[in-house]
Amino acid sequence: RSGEMAKLTQLIDNEVFRAYATYTTIVLLKMMLMSLITAYFRITRKTFVNPEDTTIFGKGESAKKYLRTDPDVERVRRGHLNDLENIVPFLGIGLLYALSGPELPTALLHFRIFAGARIVHTFAYLIPLPQPSRGLSWAVGYAVTISMAYKVLKTALYL
Amino acid sequence: RSGEMAKLTQLIDNEVFRAYATYTTIVLLKMMLMSLITAYFRITRKTFVNPEDTTIFGKGESAKKYLRTDPDVERVRRGHLNDLENIVPFLGIGLLYALSGPELPTALLHFRIFAGARIVHTFAYLIPLPQPSRGLSWAVGYAVTISMAYKVLKTALYL
Amino acid sequence: RSGEMAKLTQLIDNEVFRAYATYTTIVLLKMMLMSLITAYFRITRKTFVNPEDTTIFGKGESAKKYLRTDPDVERVRRGHLNDLENIVPFLGIGLLYALSGPELPTALLHFRIFAGARIVHTFAYLIPLPQPSRGLSWAVGYAVTISMAYKVLKTALYL
Repeated sequence: RSGEMAKLTQLIDNEVFRAYATYTTIVLLKMMLMSLITAYFRITRKTFVNPEDTTIFGKGESAKKYLRTDPDVERVRRGHLNDLENIVPFLGIGLLYALSGPELPTALLHFRIFAGARIVHTFAYLIPLPQPSRGLSWAVGYAVTISMAYKVLKTALYL
Repeated sequence: RSGEMAKLTQLIDNEVFRAYATYTTIVLLKMMLMSLITAYFRITRKTFVNPEDTTIFGKGESAKKYLRTDPDVERVRRGHLNDLENIVPFLGIGLLYALSGPELPTALLHFRIFAGARIVHTFAYLIPLPQPSRGLSWAVGYAVTISMAYKVLKTALYL
Repeated sequence: RSGEMAKLTQLIDNEVFRAYATYTTIVLLKMMLMSLITAYFRITRKTFVNPEDTTIFGKGESAKKYLRTDPDVERVRRGHLNDLENIVPFLGIGLLYALSGPELPTALLHFRIFAGARIVHTFAYLIPLPQPSRGLSWAVGYAVTISMAYKVLKTALYL
């Protein structure tokens, strides 16, 4: 057993894989933060979608008025969904890319730019910054993922 | 080739990795179940969003009345989206955690609590149970994922 | 270091893993394409959800009329969400399946049918094709994922 465990930890000892693990964890934690921001806005704006969530603020008819939508809550939710749409491809394609034997500096460049772009995207969405800030930060993350996908298909293509 | 395959199966023979595989498959199957529950409510409540889906229940104007929203359908869809938002981080961070060499009992504790919390969350959402059942079950799964992320970053951090 | 890298690349040299890498990258790129199609419809239909996105088409009150929903935009977004709901389970369960030591022809059959089903699903959703085209293509991808989950649990079950 300890021999197998050693082989497993070799994966996590590989620098490219460690970089993938670090940046993936960072962008996933960033995505998880969107849940807390949504909850914060829902509570401070008293804006809920589930009747059972309004009971802290009142009973019966008086609570029903909190079943509404709020522009800020909706904005955070759109940012959260955009994260899912873009971080899921990074999670999958990035893992395969990390296993496809890229040079460490090239891999770091991809991971850093992707993580930076998604963090800028979140600020651009939530503040909000004037366009094309959000559009550009989205496109940068998208292009990095396409670049990794190209490397994966070039290395591993087996149809 | 068979030598390589042997190395591959060593991964699946590792107990921590097998536990990760088991609980990840369980929570992903649970998430997939949400699609079936949505379809069940859409059909029994005759509530659709795509015009081409209503043709089994009528043609032309008589079918248009089924293009509507239903509170139960919307509830299941919210539960499904919440699964995506929370199970995607578990999928990615959990994999890296399983490769970061945790003790088997610690890893099992994390995986079991996460899977249990997400199953309770689904019941709390769909029945629905009074709050804070859903909120607490969500928070437990969230905290487990944060704990695994901490271990990944502590073991693998490479910025 | 180079010894570790060699072990890593053995994973990507394994034919089942290469097939998983290829088909996963294909379905993730297909999912990413939904973002471009959404953007295309938003711009050509002048249909936006964020006030800051309308400024290219006008200022102040004249821009507000572009904050609306469009049936084609909503259709693409539903297709995108359906991709997330189905491709995330494939990403996770497919990876574990590829590591569970399946026969190459069996694995290829699973991956090819899943990718084909999701491509048909996208055409069925966007054209749209009459039902049950979309329903059937969805069900085929779903069944393939269940079949892989069964193999993973049979090989790796560790509760």
